[in-house]
Formats: sequence, C-alpha cells, structure tokens
Amino acid sequence: MKSYRKELSFHLPTRRGLVNITNDVQQAIDESGIKEGLVLINAMNITASVFINDDEGGLHNDYEKWLEGLAPEKPYSQYQHNGYEDNADAHLKRTIMGRETTCAITNGELDFGTWEQIFYFEFDGKRTKRVLIKIIGE
Amino acid sequence: MKSYRKELSFHLPTRRGLVNITNDVQQAIDESGIKEGLVLINAMNITASVFINDDEGGLHNDYEKWLEGLAPEKPYSQYQHNGYEDNADAHLKRTIMGRETTCAITNGELDFGTWEQIFYFEFDGKRTKRVLIKIIGE
Amino acid sequence: MKSYRKELSFHLPTRRGLVNITNDVQQAIDESGIKEGLVLINAMNITASVFINDDEGGLHNDYEKWLEGLAPEKPYSQYQHNGYEDNADAHLKRTIMGRETTCAITNGELDFGTWEQIFYFEFDGKRTKRVLIKIIGE
Repeated sequence: MKSYRKELSFHLPTRRGLVNITNDVQQAIDESGIKEGLVLINAMNITASVFINDDEGGLHNDYEKWLEGLAPEKPYSQYQHNGYEDNADAHLKRTIMGRETTCAITNGELDFGTWEQIFYFEFDGKRTKRVLIKIIGE
Repeated sequence: MKSYRKELSFHLPTRRGLVNITNDVQQAIDESGIKEGLVLINAMNITASVFINDDEGGLHNDYEKWLEGLAPEKPYSQYQHNGYEDNADAHLKRTIMGRETTCAITNGELDFGTWEQIFYFEFDGKRTKRVLIKIIGE
Repeated sequence: MKSYRKELSFHLPTRRGLVNITNDVQQAIDESGIKEGLVLINAMNITASVFINDDEGGLHNDYEKWLEGLAPEKPYSQYQHNGYEDNADAHLKRTIMGRETTCAITNGELDFGTWEQIFYFEFDGKRTKRVLIKIIGE
C-alpha cells in the first residue's frame, strides 16, 4: 500500500466564497502514482467545507442565499459562540455542507460522474486556511 | 491491497424516491473477496444521495416532508439555478442528505449496527442515474 | 495492509449531549500500530452522529438551539415515525450532523488542523449506544 499527502492553501479576500479544486486533487493523484484507491479531501479549518456538486454559478448563488436562511450571519448576538468571535454562522454553514469528501481512484483518475466537481467552500475568509489531501492505494 | 469497483443503476418513475441498497453493497463485497477494508458508496449524480438510516416507511415520509420544508421544490423561480433547469431543490436536498457514505468491512461483512441500512435517495428521477461502489482492503 | 477495529460505548444520562472522543480515536491508532492510512469513525446507531468541529461550549449550545430549530423534538405527533417511538427528531438531527467522519493518519497521528476535534453527538440517550473505529493502512 502506498500513501501520499498534500496540503492546499487558501486566502480568500471575502468572508465567503467557492473555489473549484478538482484539478488540484487530480494533480495530487498524478503525483502519488496511485492507480487504485481512495482519496480523502478535508478542510483543516472548522469554518470551511469540502463538497461535491455542480460548477454552475446560479447554483452557487443559491447555496449562498439558502445557507444564510438556515444559519444567518447576523445578528452576531444570536449565537453564544460569538463572545470574542463573529463566526458562529460559519461553523453551522460548514456543518450543512460537510467537512470532507472521500472519492474513488480508478485507473489513476478521480472516478466521477459527468458533473461531479470538488469545491472548497470558505465561510470565514480573509485569512489563510488549509485543505488536506490524503491518498491511499496502489 | 486489493480493490474492486461496481456501479449500480437506477431509473425511478417519480421525481423523488428511496431504494434500500444494503444487499447490493454486501453482494459487491462478496464479489470482491475483501475481508478487511473500507467500502465507499457514492451517488455519481449531483441530485441524489447515498445515506444510512432506518428502513422505516414513516421515517421516509418524514424525510420527504422535512426536506421540502428546508429546500422547497416550488416555486421554481426562487432559485437562480433554474434558468433552464427545474432541479435546484434537488441539489440542495442532496446536500442535506449527503453524497456518500464510507463503511467498514470486517470478516467480509458490512460492519453495521443493528438498524443501519444504506439507501439511495433520488431527488430528480425519471432518468437513469448511477451509484459507485469502491472497495479497498485485503 | 493492516487493519484494526475498536468499539466505543456510550450511555448518556440525557436525551442529547456531546462527548469529545479525539483521544479515544488517537489511542486506537496507537494500538493499531498503523502510521499511514485512514481511520473511519461512525455512529453504529442511527440517532447519533460523529462529527468534527470546535471544543467550545458556546458553540455546542448553539448547535443544540439550531438543531431544535431545524428539526424540533416536539410535538412528537408531527412525525409519522413517532407511532411507537418519540425519536424522529433524533434521526433528522443526526442527518444534519452526519453519521461518520473519515480522517487521515500521518506519522501515526491524526492529521488535523489546529482546532479539529472529534465528537460523538447523542440525540436519543439514556440507553447504550456504540461508535465504530476502523483503521486501515501500514
């Protein structure tokens, strides 16, 4: 069994934003030389998500509006976590979208359906955040 | 390390519906010959979910009602994604329920609690959709 | 490839509650002798979650309030599942928080960001429940 580890780094200029990281993950698989296995991709910060869905701008706007409805940013005082912080909503939004995804590697490629794309979803940006890619297989 | 790959195919007659795929996953494990490892089961389409919960009809009806409350299908015009599509709600419902599950294999069997069952949850049916089963182990 | 399996057991005195299990998971990794691989941690009961976030009491109170808003416990009669049961809300809350997490093991340690902690989240306590830890790697 082989394993490979890589970090991605992000520093978004806005509080929230989406980055398509599918090519970064495929590049890590290429670097690993692993042909059959699993790849775990997870946010290393607890106010960000890694998830799989469509690379379509309208849908991304829908996510923004929908998540604000389910876990509003303001008023900050509605959350006990916001004593010294203002990012409780970011923890909740990340919970909806998920911390991680595990994907199959087949013949050295992400084994994906037609429209599957991997995204980093930032909910508390303007600082450096990290994503971990861990690959195991042969 | 061994690996095994299998696809399941679905074509539901309704927009939404649930299919218990626990036996299909166990059959794939049997075919793989893998006794100790992990099995990833994921929707290959981005308007469907794979998740684990109870095989109880009342609960399944509760899921339908609850998801409609959190991400209503109509009016279609409330979602920017619905320019040429009408399935934005399906992307959001699938986000709540999740794309995938990873399960343990022990002694050649799904290592499950008493009531755990694996389901495919369709949110945009009447077309052919796929689920990927990827197994690694020994 | 090596594998290792361990169960954790819980019996909370309240219906809902959180337990930090990060040290238990690291101990299982130590016992396994596995240095590079993946660890799956999942609830074996379908009314509980395993998830990763901050070990901060204010946030945990925010989770309680937020989940009650998204999937209220009462009135019990609002859920079809509650014919002989009263825990439909527990199934839904667990769906939001997730069944499982998969984590990377690097150099024999949980490969975590600064604030990542693993929690067991009970939604239907006062009975014995289980969590499965399955580790594969080398």
